[in-house]
Amino acid sequence: GSAMAQSSVTLYGVVDLGLVKQNRADASPAGITALGAVGLTNKELNVAQATKSRLGFRGVEDLGGGYKAKFKLEHRFTPDNGAQSATADFWDMSVVALETPVGEIGAGRDYMPAFYLQFKQDPWLNQGIAEVGGTTTYAFATYITPTTRSARVNNALFYSMAASGFTVQAAASMKESGTPGTTPGATGDAGAKNRFGLGVSYEAGPLFVGLAYDQSERTVGADHNLTMLGASYDFGMVKPRVSYARADLGATTPTSYIVAATVPVDTNIVKLGYAHFDADNATSTKANKFSIGYEHVLSKRTAVYTDVTSGKIKGSQTVTGFDVGVRHTF
Amino acid sequence: GSAMAQSSVTLYGVVDLGLVKQNRADASPAGITALGAVGLTNKELNVAQATKSRLGFRGVEDLGGGYKAKFKLEHRFTPDNGAQSATADFWDMSVVALETPVGEIGAGRDYMPAFYLQFKQDPWLNQGIAEVGGTTTYAFATYITPTTRSARVNNALFYSMAASGFTVQAAASMKESGTPGTTPGATGDAGAKNRFGLGVSYEAGPLFVGLAYDQSERTVGADHNLTMLGASYDFGMVKPRVSYARADLGATTPTSYIVAATVPVDTNIVKLGYAHFDADNATSTKANKFSIGYEHVLSKRTAVYTDVTSGKIKGSQTVTGFDVGVRHTF
Amino acid sequence: GSAMAQSSVTLYGVVDLGLVKQNRADASPAGITALGAVGLTNKELNVAQATKSRLGFRGVEDLGGGYKAKFKLEHRFTPDNGAQSATADFWDMSVVALETPVGEIGAGRDYMPAFYLQFKQDPWLNQGIAEVGGTTTYAFATYITPTTRSARVNNALFYSMAASGFTVQAAASMKESGTPGTTPGATGDAGAKNRFGLGVSYEAGPLFVGLAYDQSERTVGADHNLTMLGASYDFGMVKPRVSYARADLGATTPTSYIVAATVPVDTNIVKLGYAHFDADNATSTKANKFSIGYEHVLSKRTAVYTDVTSGKIKGSQTVTGFDVGVRHTF
Repeated sequence: GSAMAQSSVTLYGVVDLGLVKQNRADASPAGITALGAVGLTNKELNVAQATKSRLGFRGVEDLGGGYKAKFKLEHRFTPDNGAQSATADFWDMSVVALETPVGEIGAGRDYMPAFYLQFKQDPWLNQGIAEVGGTTTYAFATYITPTTRSARVNNALFYSMAASGFTVQAAASMKESGTPGTTPGATGDAGAKNRFGLGVSYEAGPLFVGLAYDQSERTVGADHNLTMLGASYDFGMVKPRVSYARADLGATTPTSYIVAATVPVDTNIVKLGYAHFDADNATSTKANKFSIGYEHVLSKRTAVYTDVTSGKIKGSQTVTGFDVGVRHTF
Repeated sequence: GSAMAQSSVTLYGVVDLGLVKQNRADASPAGITALGAVGLTNKELNVAQATKSRLGFRGVEDLGGGYKAKFKLEHRFTPDNGAQSATADFWDMSVVALETPVGEIGAGRDYMPAFYLQFKQDPWLNQGIAEVGGTTTYAFATYITPTTRSARVNNALFYSMAASGFTVQAAASMKESGTPGTTPGATGDAGAKNRFGLGVSYEAGPLFVGLAYDQSERTVGADHNLTMLGASYDFGMVKPRVSYARADLGATTPTSYIVAATVPVDTNIVKLGYAHFDADNATSTKANKFSIGYEHVLSKRTAVYTDVTSGKIKGSQTVTGFDVGVRHTF
Repeated sequence: GSAMAQSSVTLYGVVDLGLVKQNRADASPAGITALGAVGLTNKELNVAQATKSRLGFRGVEDLGGGYKAKFKLEHRFTPDNGAQSATADFWDMSVVALETPVGEIGAGRDYMPAFYLQFKQDPWLNQGIAEVGGTTTYAFATYITPTTRSARVNNALFYSMAASGFTVQAAASMKESGTPGTTPGATGDAGAKNRFGLGVSYEAGPLFVGLAYDQSERTVGADHNLTMLGASYDFGMVKPRVSYARADLGATTPTSYIVAATVPVDTNIVKLGYAHFDADNATSTKANKFSIGYEHVLSKRTAVYTDVTSGKIKGSQTVTGFDVGVRHTF
């Protein structure tokens, strides 16, 4: 290509590929999924990714007077085979928004507020084999299931506002249909249901504290909900993060907490994380996961990384994993 | 992203999201579809769009001497859930063309000429809940059906030429196969058939008149065809548009007409439209639809809009709909 | 679109459309597929392509000290109907790579080295109705089958290095799973298997010679392999190319050779090619194909072309094809 025509669109994204291996593929699927979101079901050496690769299209138009029109479309894919990751084209994000002097109003598909907080508290951003904030180690695990509730919602309205260190995020997903269904964005038991979420955070210098809530309508019984609390403090030499989540699913109230930290080494970074999950179910399922990682920064946009992680569901065998790779943002 | 590499491609598109609601979801599907192309099958509040969202890639290369090489690829999606709208990637348009001093010759997938005229006559451009030029209110309704004939054709050759106020458009779609099929671009009864179309228009100052014809080969019986006539005149204060269409389907000859107008209010616009459809079938199906809309322009590329529309199939109940949203082009 | 935001991504690609016709659609499928990769199963006039159309996204970041971070994502589609060509989004190529002073290391999805050599030896680059290097006329035909082995591999590591006229390419695809499967990148009989390839070439002025090897693990029996040898010499007036390939499939050892040439005519080009294939099977299947083409260059990025080709499987009828079209790169 040559001589770029003018456009108001910015292409951006992340590509990440490396080698991933874990020591078990047989026996307990639960033990394996405790290792996180890479989706390995084997113990071979895999070409895989630690960051979820994306190709995005975004644009902003200044309308004057503090108003802006915006859009963001993010396509998710797996670069090891070039495949689209989900059925929707812009599965990662698809938002049209108006920024106003009193906050930003958006519509479309995006994360619920609790999940923005969840990412921020995990040094691995809920991604890759080493993540400690994922759906498998959190109380989120039981609140979110692919067929009923997802971290993202379709057909939603979003509002966010930041002032004086405070940030407020709200989201409401429309059920849009009275017919039963388990499509993405469906938010209930036997059919599409309404769902809403709220997040409030405060940031002042090195301190960050956040609280978020997510509630889903159900066909029968009481609504399900999830509450999350997180905090971090940047001491310079080390930035510890703690968070706690509790899901109220009616019959059970699973809980989880994580203790994590990032340690800067020159321009590079060491990541540490521990997560504990208690399913509060009949079999008293409890799980622990510990991860350590190192990210060597080659440039503002490119880093090489390596991680070791080990997870264990109580009464089951330990699953240990390792990755090494390169992440390039553009 | 930063530091854009040079390219000869322009990224462009439209994203539109808002709230849409109609008063009926039950009973007569016919009554509901009479309201247009938004595809609602419920009476809940929906996050939906009034303009069909698209992401396009286009390029032009000047070859000198009045010759240009061109391409245009348009991807259609629904931003409320980030999903691709149809099975084909560039379902909206996929054309490679050579512009020459004696007209433009193209190949690929695009609208047939009659549909370019149809859009021009509808203040809503055949899109959203309020449109009055759509397949459901026109004679087009019975000529076009998803499984046999579409507004667009695959495997086609296109020709267009503009001079002295006249524009000529011609298209011919190849049947490409002797085997029966109902794939997009298929143009007959029991299998892929040849199809061709022709459009002629004249524009002089405030006046526009256009005539278009579309004909589809059939396996048995006479070919089907459609004729459309449209005109508009820009009085400045108001721009009325009238059009008439007649489909010859052998057994029946459905007809439709629309009377519409746009009224500029400063830089904003008021839209009015009325459409009448007569199916000329055994049950004498007749339908009426009336729409009014207002578009408030925030910038050259962004507008907020609201529309109210009401449609009724004779003997059935009235369906009324409402939308409000924001449209951003890039 | 206007006012391009800065980005580090380059959009590039090829679109090609024209008319293609062959004289037979009935009888022997084998005879028809001998004509190459256009996939025609009819004898109608088709709108089709001679070059496989692609839309690509690529980026390079200079990390200093001879290091670069790179990615390349290529989407394949058919512009005659706007459809995606394969199940994977970036089916054509999906590579993340680090360039270092001692060679380039990549991961993802790409061609195996033998196929880079195969393309180089075919004046039609293994594409369109006239190609003589394709899977159907080569020994490659029997080595590559859609359900077991492909020209491309997923989940692979790649290495390449060029110095003093020599280029070395190596690729290894991970089996990643012990479970049987016939997914893309699967490289065995009854399940995913390891696969590796090596290519070495030498270029000095007008001379090019290349040798490549590809080996696939099997569940039972000995591994399959393929060896290819190719050479060309640019005499200025004409550039002849010869190549020979031999697949060792255990029970049979199919072979093929091609003799081809390109002849520059001003800035335009005449292409000639002959391919012979011997399946070495029970029925002694042998096939011949001859092609001649002319490419008229309109600009650096746009050309019009026409080709005539004729193929015959011994004992079967001759299939003759013709195409004319325009190819535009961007």
